[in-house]
Amino acid sequence: MHGSEILLDLFVIFVAAQIGAGVARMLRLPGVVGEIAVGCAIGPSVLGWIAPSEPLEVLAEIGVVLLLFSVGLETRVDEMKRVGRSAFLVGVLGVIVPFALGSLWAHGSGFDWDKSLFVAAAFVATSAGITARVLQELGVLQRQESRVILGAAVIDDILAMLLLGIVTALQAGESVQIGKLVVIVAEAVGFVLVIGFFGTHIARRWSQRLASLKLCSSLALALALCLGLAFASTQFGLAAIIGAFLAGMVASEIPQRDELEHQTQPLLALMTPFFFVLTGAKIELAQLASTDALLALAVITAIALVSKLVGGFLGALALGRRGALIVGVGMMPRGEVGVVIASLGLATGVFSPRTYALIVAMSLLTSIVTPPLLALLLQPRQTSPQ
Amino acid sequence: MHGSEILLDLFVIFVAAQIGAGVARMLRLPGVVGEIAVGCAIGPSVLGWIAPSEPLEVLAEIGVVLLLFSVGLETRVDEMKRVGRSAFLVGVLGVIVPFALGSLWAHGSGFDWDKSLFVAAAFVATSAGITARVLQELGVLQRQESRVILGAAVIDDILAMLLLGIVTALQAGESVQIGKLVVIVAEAVGFVLVIGFFGTHIARRWSQRLASLKLCSSLALALALCLGLAFASTQFGLAAIIGAFLAGMVASEIPQRDELEHQTQPLLALMTPFFFVLTGAKIELAQLASTDALLALAVITAIALVSKLVGGFLGALALGRRGALIVGVGMMPRGEVGVVIASLGLATGVFSPRTYALIVAMSLLTSIVTPPLLALLLQPRQTSPQ
Repeated sequence: MHGSEILLDLFVIFVAAQIGAGVARMLRLPGVVGEIAVGCAIGPSVLGWIAPSEPLEVLAEIGVVLLLFSVGLETRVDEMKRVGRSAFLVGVLGVIVPFALGSLWAHGSGFDWDKSLFVAAAFVATSAGITARVLQELGVLQRQESRVILGAAVIDDILAMLLLGIVTALQAGESVQIGKLVVIVAEAVGFVLVIGFFGTHIARRWSQRLASLKLCSSLALALALCLGLAFASTQFGLAAIIGAFLAGMVASEIPQRDELEHQTQPLLALMTPFFFVLTGAKIELAQLASTDALLALAVITAIALVSKLVGGFLGALALGRRGALIVGVGMMPRGEVGVVIASLGLATGVFSPRTYALIVAMSLLTSIVTPPLLALLLQPRQTSPQ
Repeated sequence: MHGSEILLDLFVIFVAAQIGAGVARMLRLPGVVGEIAVGCAIGPSVLGWIAPSEPLEVLAEIGVVLLLFSVGLETRVDEMKRVGRSAFLVGVLGVIVPFALGSLWAHGSGFDWDKSLFVAAAFVATSAGITARVLQELGVLQRQESRVILGAAVIDDILAMLLLGIVTALQAGESVQIGKLVVIVAEAVGFVLVIGFFGTHIARRWSQRLASLKLCSSLALALALCLGLAFASTQFGLAAIIGAFLAGMVASEIPQRDELEHQTQPLLALMTPFFFVLTGAKIELAQLASTDALLALAVITAIALVSKLVGGFLGALALGRRGALIVGVGMMPRGEVGVVIASLGLATGVFSPRTYALIVAMSLLTSIVTPPLLALLLQPRQTSPQ
């Protein structure tokens, strides 16, 4: 009578996330690992208590958007500028190396070259959500490595979009329209720069005056900005989380910044579990129930991890070896972006269901492997609960 | 690619709600009136910018559940006990009077007696969401009248469920199984009493020990309780908001209560606009575009308002005339409960689409009329923004 099934889903997911995160922390792992693992356990693959549905996907999307918004809140644009060079290099090399290795592997496993490029595109895009959560949990968002990772994630997303445009055109047998691609990328870059620089500038200059009008609370204004830019960035071909991150950076320039950070915490507590539990629930264990599949998965996951690690490491060498290693590891998770590209490949018939399952499993596996490694590198002994 | 339509919906609804609430406050009306009005404006009836969808319904449900949870947080069970007698009388009379007048009207307009009883059931159930929001906005949740209204809403919901069980059986030509109904009502009453008394007792005694385990934050625990009891109350045939309200009352007994109240505010800021804007978006103006329909609507809305007002007033006479008037007005909104009964009537063929539209419009109209009246009675000049 009152939509009780969905309430049960919400309850189960929320409680499972708390238990998963609690157990993970007892094992000195980041809480997010527990949330993903518990998602796999209660998902269709194992217990089948929950199944991804449209409302849950929306809650998950809101969760990761809020997460990146709060990460943006802890990031100042001036500090981002300082790591601009490293972030750019990490972003570019972190795309080129996985793309190159990915196409070689795909071609080696029998794909045509144009299909291989498509497969390789799924190796490319870093998903900032997982890493951002780990960095936030460890309280190290202010470190230089964290800024490089976040900046690189933005550049990475722009390049991934460019790449996807090219390989989709190649795959469909169309000629690549360089002019059109240049316009698309210019628009995306323009969007990021305009929001990142002018947006923060405007926030600094006008926020006092806007606040004095008392039209609505600064939280309401910030949330509107977050939702608005998250949507706007999808219109420029970028992930919603990029817009949310930029919105957070803009909001971090206003005087009520600390209050906003404080107010965002309960929102994250309620909404982010849906993202991570659903990420875990999407792992289809059945597809991987053969030595053959597991072997293939091991190979592509290794390629995905190593290629991104190498690209990120080389790009961030200016931070020293350990810093470069942290950045490389931080760039490893593919998360939902790889899944989206794989779905596209399945829908257009480029991938077989098995390749699809492999790519999805690889994307999710990179998300599970990264947090403990990152925690190990950043803080050998993590004891505090959250 | 990343669910951009839903992000646009979220952005539009959220911003529209802020504008609506802001304009309403400038007109010295409670913000909630503006949110409902703006929902009607951007909904399918007028601009068509948004349409109710499953994900939006879920967000709305979470919003109203959180709202009643936060209202529960501001309500102590000891204070509820003190107004128990009045609340009981208001709940009972607030059901009997509208049901009696409703069936007389329905029979007078040509319905059989058994169908008339079904129509009358749609006149009965008070929706606590609207009133709770107004009381919270005005900061008067601590007043005796507020406690009577909230207590009566719980009793009201139990009686409405009982009534719906009876009229559905009558309508289907089945004999009413008294024994079965007694069990159903006993279960619902038992659920409310067990949670309301033992739950708060346990919270008082065990919360310190639980907190010292540091398994998770008290916010996470409170949210889990809120979602869990919201679901549980639907299993006892009650509205989800009743469970959420009880969860809030239980959580209000723990020492971290003030912190919880503080942390709940950002959650309400994000989620409740979806409930009120969606409530407004459901108003179908087209069905009411004739003098005939408007006249009929005026009559049934008047019956709905007056009958509840009289019932509530008589029940709360112990509070004095003004207090009784406030309680009577506070019980007037039917909100989504009337809509649910109307849908049931449409689905089982008891109502014509026109009767359905009338009942829905009446339910929503009572929700729009109540907040300004309540604000007028409780605080003649309201100036502070929220």
